Amino acid sequence: MQIAQVDLRSDLIDLGIGQPGLPLLPADIIRQAADHRMARDGHAYLQYGAEQGDGWFREALATFISRTHGFAPDPERLFVTAGASQALDLIATLFVPAGSVVCVEEPSYHLALNSLRDHRFQLESLPTDDDGLIIDGLEARLAELRPAMLYLIPTFQNPTGATLPAERRERLVEIARRLDLLLVADEVYHPLGTDLAPPASFGRYVNEAPVLTLGSFSKILAPGLRLGWVQGGAGRIRRMVECGLLDSGGGLNPFVSGLVRSVLELDLLEPHLERLTTEFRARIGAMAEVLNRHCPGVTFSLPRGGYFFWGRLPDGLDASALVPRANALGVGFRPGALFSTRNGLTDRFRLSFAPYDTDTLVEGVRRLGRVLDAGRR
Amino acid sequence: MQIAQVDLRSDLIDLGIGQPGLPLLPADIIRQAADHRMARDGHAYLQYGAEQGDGWFREALATFISRTHGFAPDPERLFVTAGASQALDLIATLFVPAGSVVCVEEPSYHLALNSLRDHRFQLESLPTDDDGLIIDGLEARLAELRPAMLYLIPTFQNPTGATLPAERRERLVEIARRLDLLLVADEVYHPLGTDLAPPASFGRYVNEAPVLTLGSFSKILAPGLRLGWVQGGAGRIRRMVECGLLDSGGGLNPFVSGLVRSVLELDLLEPHLERLTTEFRARIGAMAEVLNRHCPGVTFSLPRGGYFFWGRLPDGLDASALVPRANALGVGFRPGALFSTRNGLTDRFRLSFAPYDTDTLVEGVRRLGRVLDAGRR
Repeated sequence: MQIAQVDLRSDLIDLGIGQPGLPLLPADIIRQAADHRMARDGHAYLQYGAEQGDGWFREALATFISRTHGFAPDPERLFVTAGASQALDLIATLFVPAGSVVCVEEPSYHLALNSLRDHRFQLESLPTDDDGLIIDGLEARLAELRPAMLYLIPTFQNPTGATLPAERRERLVEIARRLDLLLVADEVYHPLGTDLAPPASFGRYVNEAPVLTLGSFSKILAPGLRLGWVQGGAGRIRRMVECGLLDSGGGLNPFVSGLVRSVLELDLLEPHLERLTTEFRARIGAMAEVLNRHCPGVTFSLPRGGYFFWGRLPDGLDASALVPRANALGVGFRPGALFSTRNGLTDRFRLSFAPYDTDTLVEGVRRLGRVLDAGRR
Repeated sequence: MQIAQVDLRSDLIDLGIGQPGLPLLPADIIRQAADHRMARDGHAYLQYGAEQGDGWFREALATFISRTHGFAPDPERLFVTAGASQALDLIATLFVPAGSVVCVEEPSYHLALNSLRDHRFQLESLPTDDDGLIIDGLEARLAELRPAMLYLIPTFQNPTGATLPAERRERLVEIARRLDLLLVADEVYHPLGTDLAPPASFGRYVNEAPVLTLGSFSKILAPGLRLGWVQGGAGRIRRMVECGLLDSGGGLNPFVSGLVRSVLELDLLEPHLERLTTEFRARIGAMAEVLNRHCPGVTFSLPRGGYFFWGRLPDGLDASALVPRANALGVGFRPGALFSTRNGLTDRFRLSFAPYDTDTLVEGVRRLGRVLDAGRR
């Protein structure tokens, strides 16, 4: 019977999976936190929770963010969600009329695109380079498209790994303010820098511009908890807190908030993050080496955080066309076209270093080399 | 710092609150289930979960439903949600275009109405009597309104407590099939019969008509868990499982599903339901007696399950106008107009027997009597 979203095929190394492997999920921490909370006020977390999220949890979360996201947020500007995907869905319902134009990066996280399509938005993509969203020419393009929202992943982007520099952030926020355009910054990979301390979270702008940020415990603790947060200005936080869904159901994940409050208060998360980034650093180094050795002609930038390698195939090879052969040779990846809203990026592909240990990742890349060899013959 | 959605004012007995009191929330059961699950495969529940919900949990849930809801569902027709409110929100996003007409009962659950309004639907209400939705004349009215969905609470309705008889259910489903109208039956109070075994859940119709049902652990176990389910036909279940939100976030509440799987497999829920309904039966009897004694002129039907008394004030008194005086005299209730989409039902009010023990409920009704006395002077 299937418990997890992805059932790993034992003969397939699927480097396309954007999920942490089971050994990275800290059952011991969750158990310790559960014991701690239930020996104290665990009872209170069985009730309908405060709509904005438990105040004690938001205090602990603000402290965590101040240590990891480059600025100290006001707990009153934090709203507790059931994960970043749920948050994006709620934002779409409350702040973006059906039929609106919504701008995204080219490329962008393919599953966020699907979620936005469920809301019947018209998606328009904006060009990026190695530093993320290109700001030159952006204001004119936005003035023409008149989007209701711009969704971006500014730090360790999915799929490219790019991080938007501070100066581009400032200019983007200035444009959003001038056009009164809602910026939604999905920052779920922010605390996962392996070789870069990224610029401060977009959360620093929420009081001065139409900005919302998405955070999550899925990539840094455990996805099954379905717990995340939004940072926003007072008006937008209030609109979410007062919406019908929250009014009816109360806070979005009270019981789990209680557990993670203990994770944070017992200072268990930061050592875990340290273990994660140390492990990822080793995996990135090993994968890069074997990519260079076994996949000649493939180019990529070395990831400096997050979960992903973003590669380019040589000679304009079509990544989607390689999928059946890769499957037959026991390796998976995500072709670039998935991340495009215009059927572009056909010679690109995404690999994740999150789901397997180093040896398995290395074996996966070796198989990928065989797929490319066969493609050249 | 606020943990719960409602902070109880110590001097106020708020009979308007549709939430179980803290002493009804079984911390011992949750603790036992958590220990059980985490000693076994708890680790697996920290991963992104299967989109439809864990198969083992759905098996256990199907068994529970077969004992409490009058028919045995196929686990493949169950979809695990983060509570009934979240389920209604997702159904609205996926199955009901913005701007659609949506029909509801008059009266209906006021917070579901707010959630539907967030989706920018046009709400139209349909008349009810002591047996719930009136079927005579319904088909012609629906043919005229052409709604995209009909939302109803067929069992121990919120706020009226009414239960739709089997014969009306059959006729309603027949109409929905003829008009291809999506029926959404919110059945969160179904297992809480104190004096009536209700007709089988609308889940029995999901393979033959456009029907979805909403179930939840909020009213029968603990709201803070945010766990519920939808029953539906294969096509609609598939649409939910494949939507962007689920594709991105995986199953809606995997970790908590694991805990509640243990609650069900250890057979802890049915004895708890037995305790709940025994307690509610006593509260209903005591409240009815004191209502008759201290609130002369007020009429009501004796609740046969659920959470609520639905009363009518004498002499066309306006319930909303009594709120400030009730507040001053230390008692709260929900005025009927809240539950109307047409500013009607002004002489009606809702009282809940879920939030307090019998003595407190009785004292609350005594205070209500004083409010009415003062109103007559």
